Amino acid sequence: MPSRNMQLSDVLTANRRILPFINKTPLIKSQWLSSQAKANVFLKLENVQVTGSFKYRGATNALIWAKEQHIPKIFSATAGNHGLGLAEASTHTESDVTICLPTTASPVKKQRLKSYSVSVIEHGEDYDVCEAYAKRMATQKNGFFLSAYNHPEVIAGNGTVALEMLQELPQLTTLVIACGGGGLIGGMAIAAKAINPRIKIIGAVAGNSPAMLASINAGRIVRAFCEKTIADGIWGNLEEDSITFPLAKELVDDWVLVEESEIKSTIFDYLDNEGMLIEGAAAVAIAAISRKHHKPRPNEQVGIVVCGGNITRQDWREILVQHLVGAGKA
Amino acid sequence: MPSRNMQLSDVLTANRRILPFINKTPLIKSQWLSSQAKANVFLKLENVQVTGSFKYRGATNALIWAKEQHIPKIFSATAGNHGLGLAEASTHTESDVTICLPTTASPVKKQRLKSYSVSVIEHGEDYDVCEAYAKRMATQKNGFFLSAYNHPEVIAGNGTVALEMLQELPQLTTLVIACGGGGLIGGMAIAAKAINPRIKIIGAVAGNSPAMLASINAGRIVRAFCEKTIADGIWGNLEEDSITFPLAKELVDDWVLVEESEIKSTIFDYLDNEGMLIEGAAAVAIAAISRKHHKPRPNEQVGIVVCGGNITRQDWREILVQHLVGAGKA
Repeated sequence: MPSRNMQLSDVLTANRRILPFINKTPLIKSQWLSSQAKANVFLKLENVQVTGSFKYRGATNALIWAKEQHIPKIFSATAGNHGLGLAEASTHTESDVTICLPTTASPVKKQRLKSYSVSVIEHGEDYDVCEAYAKRMATQKNGFFLSAYNHPEVIAGNGTVALEMLQELPQLTTLVIACGGGGLIGGMAIAAKAINPRIKIIGAVAGNSPAMLASINAGRIVRAFCEKTIADGIWGNLEEDSITFPLAKELVDDWVLVEESEIKSTIFDYLDNEGMLIEGAAAVAIAAISRKHHKPRPNEQVGIVVCGGNITRQDWREILVQHLVGAGKA
Repeated sequence: MPSRNMQLSDVLTANRRILPFINKTPLIKSQWLSSQAKANVFLKLENVQVTGSFKYRGATNALIWAKEQHIPKIFSATAGNHGLGLAEASTHTESDVTICLPTTASPVKKQRLKSYSVSVIEHGEDYDVCEAYAKRMATQKNGFFLSAYNHPEVIAGNGTVALEMLQELPQLTTLVIACGGGGLIGGMAIAAKAINPRIKIIGAVAGNSPAMLASINAGRIVRAFCEKTIADGIWGNLEEDSITFPLAKELVDDWVLVEESEIKSTIFDYLDNEGMLIEGAAAVAIAAISRKHHKPRPNEQVGIVVCGGNITRQDWREILVQHLVGAGKA
């Protein structure tokens, strides 16, 4: 299924498939951001989605699809939200899922995955090696390698976030969505533009990992230099054939780039004003508004996706200590 | 409507009334508490309810009921979650609501109420004086004084929390609910016990404000000495005729008492494990499990109500600084 053929019906199918398993997450008005932006700003709380991230939607849809296709084994390579989403989804679909991790993956993440009934294999020191291994295994074992973003069923599952938002608040004029590989913004844009062609889609990109924006600017998929970022959920380059690129190119209206220091401050600001810890990727989308990269017109009705809440204890504690007692004492 | 006649149908009526206006809040499994308690523990996130508290449910139901009864004016006396709930609900019902505050109420809370189209009147230095004034005004102006907990429609509205929990997870065996005046536990117990007479209701009380537990122990409503508590949402004594007392006496199976230091530590623990700031009252219910006041049997399916998220900036910052850098540096 080539990306250009993806359409609303794919997202609707995904919605039907995953509905019994997902949380219909709250869409709440943010007094803080509304008063900052002098417009109505709403937050879609995917941080209270099962597994703490929207990725559970795409993972669940992909596993149910794979079952329908009689694909016996699924392989993936991520210790992050996609892996966690697959692990949790597999408890419902009873799929045979193998998740490959680099030997360097954090022990906490390994442990969490191992608490599920998925197979966990450690191989290679970095993700490229590990991913190549997972793909090889998939081929050898008559299985299927499932990318965290570059697959139509993952994208369609993620697109259900937009369905829920526009069902609840059809008057939304603007969606602000963090973008790494583009699996969230691609799916959401397909659904949102089909429902309301005039809706504006704004992609928010981490300064330290701007692969999609660099590619958009170049007009083709290019590699960007990716530095470490606290927004680890949207870190990394695009696969060369990524179907998310043409989607983003066609459907995203505007892009903002958020610097690392802004992401960290926004994690603090969000806790301070909304009472929740969010992961870096979610803070990238919030910062698009709170740091005034996008300045809404007064009549704009802005929906921001709080895409996940999985931040490590070390990361948030560091940020809080810095903000509460000053960098000097941290 | 005497309390003994309150029944499931009242809660169902409330549910029908308020459904268009409330968030159906998520019910999520807590890995943290499940592993601590060695049982399945679920969290009902009323902290992401509109206005950040379950009190919006009772307030909304009461205002719609008042409209049905052609009651022209509503008076109340609270700068807390009930007042905020009434203010927000009145934007939908277009009710004429007057909220009386003592002159000593926090400026932030005053400001927040004044951003709504409710009338705000400051009178008296403490809540007793202010409440007496609000009741007098209600009588003089042919209006109705609406208690934050001691009214059947408030109680019925709050009871909808139990409806949602048992609709989503009928296998719940135990509900843990914070109790101040008893307006939440009373309504939830009516609904829960009607749906499943074998369900266990556990009331969690703040050590510094144990009015309900003192009354239960005495077999009649007695005044308890109420010290300052961070769980301000459940602070205070019961009205002498409170209809919540017979409800709690009849329907609550067990009580736990949570000390002030435990409440504060639990606010930190919750942030640390669940990524959200909660108010003291919610922490009282969490602490019932996390501090092992109630030790579930392995087959128990425990639902805890995270009743609200409205904690002041000063309160949570103090707690975080203490826990992150030690009391000495705070």
